[in-house]
Amino acid sequence: MRIAVLGVGLIGGSIGMAARARLEAKVVGFDPDAAILDRAEALGAIDEGSATVAAAVGNAEIVFCAAPVRALPALAAAALAASGDYTVVSDVGSTKRTLVAGLGSEPGSERFIGGHPLAGAETAGVQNARADLFDGARWYLTPTEQAGGMHYDRLQRAVADLGARPQAVEADLHDRLMATVSHLPHVIANVLVGQARTALSDETERLPEVGPSFRDTTRVAGANPAIWGDIFAANAEAVAGEIDAVVARLEAAAELIRGGDAAAVAAWHRDALDARRELLEADVAGGELHELRVGVENRPGTVAEIALALGRAGVNIEDMALYPAADMRTGAITLWVGGAEQAERAASVVRGMGHSASVVGGSA
Amino acid sequence: MRIAVLGVGLIGGSIGMAARARLEAKVVGFDPDAAILDRAEALGAIDEGSATVAAAVGNAEIVFCAAPVRALPALAAAALAASGDYTVVSDVGSTKRTLVAGLGSEPGSERFIGGHPLAGAETAGVQNARADLFDGARWYLTPTEQAGGMHYDRLQRAVADLGARPQAVEADLHDRLMATVSHLPHVIANVLVGQARTALSDETERLPEVGPSFRDTTRVAGANPAIWGDIFAANAEAVAGEIDAVVARLEAAAELIRGGDAAAVAAWHRDALDARRELLEADVAGGELHELRVGVENRPGTVAEIALALGRAGVNIEDMALYPAADMRTGAITLWVGGAEQAERAASVVRGMGHSASVVGGSA
Repeated sequence: MRIAVLGVGLIGGSIGMAARARLEAKVVGFDPDAAILDRAEALGAIDEGSATVAAAVGNAEIVFCAAPVRALPALAAAALAASGDYTVVSDVGSTKRTLVAGLGSEPGSERFIGGHPLAGAETAGVQNARADLFDGARWYLTPTEQAGGMHYDRLQRAVADLGARPQAVEADLHDRLMATVSHLPHVIANVLVGQARTALSDETERLPEVGPSFRDTTRVAGANPAIWGDIFAANAEAVAGEIDAVVARLEAAAELIRGGDAAAVAAWHRDALDARRELLEADVAGGELHELRVGVENRPGTVAEIALALGRAGVNIEDMALYPAADMRTGAITLWVGGAEQAERAASVVRGMGHSASVVGGSA
Repeated sequence: MRIAVLGVGLIGGSIGMAARARLEAKVVGFDPDAAILDRAEALGAIDEGSATVAAAVGNAEIVFCAAPVRALPALAAAALAASGDYTVVSDVGSTKRTLVAGLGSEPGSERFIGGHPLAGAETAGVQNARADLFDGARWYLTPTEQAGGMHYDRLQRAVADLGARPQAVEADLHDRLMATVSHLPHVIANVLVGQARTALSDETERLPEVGPSFRDTTRVAGANPAIWGDIFAANAEAVAGEIDAVVARLEAAAELIRGGDAAAVAAWHRDALDARRELLEADVAGGELHELRVGVENRPGTVAEIALALGRAGVNIEDMALYPAADMRTGAITLWVGGAEQAERAASVVRGMGHSASVVGGSA
């Protein structure tokens, strides 16, 4: 397998290392900074560097665009233009809607499938790259309904082989989810440290110590200013909408607390405890793998449609295989999902889409 | 030394263990639940249990009230009523203003000095008590200006000997500081998990995974509902005021983000990074200890006044000794503070109060 990595920083370098070690891939890197390419090669993150996008992409089976968010639209377009029908182009940016919509109906855009691994925010640079960076990490994939099934399948397998857990999600929904679980916490952390600095400076000549709850709540304050400036710009409406919702909740909390009813406040706390438990339990894997066989017409978009529908239904596809029939007009997809309950839910979703589906049984 | 612990849970039990191990104190415990007293004795948290507050307090040199916040006013009043002039009564509650004001000018209230160790929030019960629970922890003390110097001195030494780092602060200011660095983060965490549950349930059938930034920001969500109901009730105005301030900041953040100016958002992030660094640097200890000798008139309130003024100036008193002169009308206080700069600042503050002060020099 030949893989191109465009932008060899922490994420691009880690993809290169993991692809070389686990996919036995030949990894070609491109970076506008030639010194970084030399360093990446010395560190074993790439097999070789290329001076141009076109040379790096060549006949790659998968291209990962791993540049900062603002550089991705041009980079992905260049990668599509320089590659052939077989090549799938993806990226690793933290927001997806603008990028996916921007590529729109350009030639080759059906070969672009956005991606976003939830890994590696604290450090940067290829010097921090690691082959195990993605182990167990969620890796969102945002195929459009035009995405080719073979392309999606190849990308999803590669992502799983890199050690991550791929999940399909619409680009719009991805950005709204990220606004809630990632971008909003960053806003909150920034606001809290600003408020604390002001409040404490007003009160004492020297800032007093802060406690562990403050440390935890503000850990991500000010993280990577340049990167987050771009992320917020690309997801402005969703993030601002989440802030509006939090403002309304805070106003209600202030009213509750001013009311002075300790029992009501305790009930509010208890509800928060439940909410967090529910949210964290969603992280627990679903149990032993079950095999789901799906019969489909072999037409563009089917695989992506199924992956998206299962993602919406909360089914995690742990692995997937495509079997086109000899006549190339029909085919079979085998999906592995964790736990009997999830497998039955997946079968029901797929049947609801008009396909045949059967759960073959559990295997550890 | 004889110490009474009224309420033998996590904090009371840990005070008992540390006092027995490090102060070689005899520790008498009181708890409304006799089974807890038996357990505490079996665990070595107390030497013996008493069936009444009066019997426990007896001729104790220090009484620690370690009951839930709502029970403290009556408990502290009972401890003062049952003890003599020599006994100093303190507590370990998370809010101080209401308690201190409530004891007001009752007989013996000059022997009450409020306290609040920043330790041990995650677990509860004497079964989790440990002699090292307070090692290195900040322990706020909130003497009024009526507090006796000998009482303050004895309490501060004992707290330091338990392993903690005592610091004097006015009760009002303590509660405002806690509103900012502790109570507000709990409100924020509660609001975030509530918002995430709603937003994510609207979007998908099964809650998606949350990222590390969300986990950190919401770690304290719903912590100890009963305890926090009381804390918020006791500190309602300060907490609600902090919420109001955060709401204003969030509204400004939403406007900034909606503006779509990535450079302005990045600058805002950079400022948050600086703010957090400043806040966390305030935690760093000040360096080798310097000795500060202060000459004072031996009148009530002097020691507390000095401790409060130094606390306001951000000087941490690592240790303290009182030397009344033979005539009992003047005296000397020796204070140890970390770092030459802090020692000089302390001397300047003390001189500004009309006392003589000299820094004797560094000793490791």
